[in-house]
Amino acid sequence: MNSANGHDESNRPTNLKTIDDPVAGLEPVVDFPSSERMHLEVGDLKVPMRRIHLSSGEPPFHVYDTFGPRAVDLHHGLPKLRKPWIDKRAKTSDRGVTQMHFARRGEITEEMRFVALRESVSPEFVRDEVARGRAIIPANRNHPESEPMIIGRSFLVKVNANIGNSAVSSSIGEEVEKLRWAIKWGADTVMDLSTGAKIHETREWIIRNSPVPIGTVPIYQALEKVKGKAEDLNIDVFLETLTEQAEQGVDYFTIHAGVLLRFIPLTAKRVTGIVSRGGSIMAKWCLAHHQENFLYTEFERICEVMKKYDVAFSLGDGLRPGCIADASDEAQYAELATLGELTQVAWKHDVQVMIEGPGHVPMNKIKENVDKQVALCQEAPFYTLGPLVTDIAPGYDHITSAIGAAMIGWHGTAMLCYVTPKEHLGLPNRKDVKDGVIAYKIAAHAADLAKGHPGAQARDDALSKARFEFRWQDQFSLSLDPETAREFHDETLPAPAAKGAHFCSMCGPQFCSMRITQDVREYASAKGVTPEEALSLGLSEKAAEFRGTRPTP
Amino acid sequence: MNSANGHDESNRPTNLKTIDDPVAGLEPVVDFPSSERMHLEVGDLKVPMRRIHLSSGEPPFHVYDTFGPRAVDLHHGLPKLRKPWIDKRAKTSDRGVTQMHFARRGEITEEMRFVALRESVSPEFVRDEVARGRAIIPANRNHPESEPMIIGRSFLVKVNANIGNSAVSSSIGEEVEKLRWAIKWGADTVMDLSTGAKIHETREWIIRNSPVPIGTVPIYQALEKVKGKAEDLNIDVFLETLTEQAEQGVDYFTIHAGVLLRFIPLTAKRVTGIVSRGGSIMAKWCLAHHQENFLYTEFERICEVMKKYDVAFSLGDGLRPGCIADASDEAQYAELATLGELTQVAWKHDVQVMIEGPGHVPMNKIKENVDKQVALCQEAPFYTLGPLVTDIAPGYDHITSAIGAAMIGWHGTAMLCYVTPKEHLGLPNRKDVKDGVIAYKIAAHAADLAKGHPGAQARDDALSKARFEFRWQDQFSLSLDPETAREFHDETLPAPAAKGAHFCSMCGPQFCSMRITQDVREYASAKGVTPEEALSLGLSEKAAEFRGTRPTP
Repeated sequence: MNSANGHDESNRPTNLKTIDDPVAGLEPVVDFPSSERMHLEVGDLKVPMRRIHLSSGEPPFHVYDTFGPRAVDLHHGLPKLRKPWIDKRAKTSDRGVTQMHFARRGEITEEMRFVALRESVSPEFVRDEVARGRAIIPANRNHPESEPMIIGRSFLVKVNANIGNSAVSSSIGEEVEKLRWAIKWGADTVMDLSTGAKIHETREWIIRNSPVPIGTVPIYQALEKVKGKAEDLNIDVFLETLTEQAEQGVDYFTIHAGVLLRFIPLTAKRVTGIVSRGGSIMAKWCLAHHQENFLYTEFERICEVMKKYDVAFSLGDGLRPGCIADASDEAQYAELATLGELTQVAWKHDVQVMIEGPGHVPMNKIKENVDKQVALCQEAPFYTLGPLVTDIAPGYDHITSAIGAAMIGWHGTAMLCYVTPKEHLGLPNRKDVKDGVIAYKIAAHAADLAKGHPGAQARDDALSKARFEFRWQDQFSLSLDPETAREFHDETLPAPAAKGAHFCSMCGPQFCSMRITQDVREYASAKGVTPEEALSLGLSEKAAEFRGTRPTP
Repeated sequence: MNSANGHDESNRPTNLKTIDDPVAGLEPVVDFPSSERMHLEVGDLKVPMRRIHLSSGEPPFHVYDTFGPRAVDLHHGLPKLRKPWIDKRAKTSDRGVTQMHFARRGEITEEMRFVALRESVSPEFVRDEVARGRAIIPANRNHPESEPMIIGRSFLVKVNANIGNSAVSSSIGEEVEKLRWAIKWGADTVMDLSTGAKIHETREWIIRNSPVPIGTVPIYQALEKVKGKAEDLNIDVFLETLTEQAEQGVDYFTIHAGVLLRFIPLTAKRVTGIVSRGGSIMAKWCLAHHQENFLYTEFERICEVMKKYDVAFSLGDGLRPGCIADASDEAQYAELATLGELTQVAWKHDVQVMIEGPGHVPMNKIKENVDKQVALCQEAPFYTLGPLVTDIAPGYDHITSAIGAAMIGWHGTAMLCYVTPKEHLGLPNRKDVKDGVIAYKIAAHAADLAKGHPGAQARDDALSKARFEFRWQDQFSLSLDPETAREFHDETLPAPAAKGAHFCSMCGPQFCSMRITQDVREYASAKGVTPEEALSLGLSEKAAEFRGTRPTP
């Protein structure tokens, strides 16, 4: 882990404590109620899960868990789970360290075994998907703290949350807290989009404390290095930045190598032009020099850095549409075809690739977007931002985009980049991050259900059964946000006894349809007949008895 | 408007003032900023719209408006817009007063002309859709205060909001306020689901003050009349209730006539049994008597009441699934086929019909639900509750269901019944009603866009153009919720000058992609070339100039 680019090592202490302690006084992120972190242990692997305890003799329910180790000293960072695996491979492999490299050689890595357990599939299936480029395991060898996860259409749909300070707001501590907050609610990866001061130090704190893969957009920092002048960018400053970040342990890089000079005019008549920051920076560079995008022309040199650390490409969609009017236009698809071409180049180097996608897409064009991506990019995983299915609801774009995200996930997108209620308006605060992650966990889970992902429906069934049986606390515990569910119930029926009541405030005791259904079942059971028999035998005397057994209203 | 059933007339004052003034001190519902109510006047018709004023010389933008007359004395109710039309028809038509009756006779009513203007289609098209049963205009002749609207797959997708006190909560004043609050945010119809005390009086206040059609579920009040004993229900008490409510002016009735005795056993093995209140009441009655549902056997008598007042059927899905596990099962589809059969009976009487649908449906089964409904119910409009696409997020079911609602609207559902964040947990308060309506306005509009509804995209385009041009106030004004959009912007950049800034807090001035795009356009414009030309001519000297004209960072 030596610095390859002369970057000041003093910014990267193993003990993260600094004089101005950035994480002092952070509000602690508390765990879920009725839950405990435990591990599925198979051989030497310990795969994290969350066990939810239920009442009334129901067996505990286990859910996929992204929160990482619970008791954490943020100043020391997380335990280095993957270090032994990485060290061992460093001794045996003389060239190439990427998961794709091993997969193609037929070797099943510990990371593959780990994700196989996490996803309830065979390690060989994981290896095959990674070898074919249909899935990626973003796992920089310098991010040993990460708990391996996989992104691909054959696996659970994943969610990314963006954090990061900007030129106008927020501190290191706030960003570390947002990281922990986002993963508590279930973010599978986190992108650090910081652009302001202390960009390197902020990233260090985030990576050392992150059990999930971290992604970045290196062009942001490269631009800082040339004092914000896009025209002054060049491949050398970019590679230097890339190496610096790879050395820190970033697991995937968004790189806008598909913004080609000849595509830029295709955006001129758009309603909202180019809306990707990285895309607009590269467009400005191309126009200023009237030369081809250096990220494209020097793509193989970029691959060399990626390969060395096993950083995955997230090939950026710099020309994605910024509104419904611009959706699925020539510029977008021209870039997508280029990303497909670059995917082949990356694969030649055994570098893992995913492809970024829109953005803003009306529902009727969502499937088309996935189908084109699959065809043009040879099934490399798709990673979309939403998409928003309408532009008319700023303040609610977690909803406008969760609609598109659920649909595009169903059709095959492997990871969904969240959108918060603040999109288009401001920087997300703690509440916005949570609202965004939860909206996207809903979308991802709905996609898993629609895809018929094995086991996905178990949580729905367990929660619905608890609901039907009036096990209120179990219903809360099994939900994505137990605190909010409980608070909402308390608002109308605050008495503790209401948590045991066999009705709720929506209908009241007299109108409770679920209680009536239970009455019907109990009646049949008491008579030793099934409800079917009670009816098909035409037992009118039983009907009379039933009238007699009704509860007093 | 005489009472047909001996109901105490003193409960129905034309001046709604009572001793305990139910609406005294209500928080006034204020109008949108930068907006004014105006009318599209064609001949004698005045169709309401909301005009949104924009800045920078942009023409004002007009949106569909459901809020009704702005200055309202709740004690006197709204002006009786439709009274002259109704009175005129009463003189000329000796039998039948329904919109379907006139449509089938080839007559275009004022209501049809009104909705034609409102939807920008021809009156003849409206008449034809109503005549074929593909659309309904819910317009009780005793609700002359209503501004006509149409529900059908060829028209804008509509949204219904439920209000109503229950056995455990709320007052008349609160319900009137919820009505006005729901229509401010765009609810196209409102269902009064009151079940508690003062059910008749509450409804009277609501109807007299509602510019939108009001729906009810009469079985709730019928059950109150038999003191909550489902077994004691009968067709006489039901018809009495129906007449009482029709006389008041209810525009559509949910009636669970498809819950047949032989279907009930099909629900016995469900995870959540019967979740419809009305459905469970009728199931209990059927089992108690071991007889067929009297709403089914006496359906023609019900049609007679509906026809007399032109109340539309909303044929209830009493056996709708209550969770993902139960979606699209035999019970659901058996009932749907029965609703199709009943549709034919209602149409024989010239009674308008829409069909209620689920509920809880995974995304992959949504299109199937619409296709079956269209086939089984001869294209009668579909009116669905969500559906929720997963069960795991109580507290967020406005989102889980907005996903399903948007999709089912795209596939042809004509009206979407909203779901609030409190669904499954408690009674919606003011914030929940707003959140539910807005989530559903998003879903409905996304559906209109996906269907390619003419003109639907204009609002997206206007808002996106405002966004691109940094007309912040216009962006807020054009959004579904201007106040929230503005508050969110203020949170990060509270200074008034930020509303004129050509960047925002997400990227800051240096990284603003949209500003860079504008720079590119301006450069090209200043040089008298299009961006295309600038590139295709390969003008490297222009590139040099462009470098020279960059703004200081």
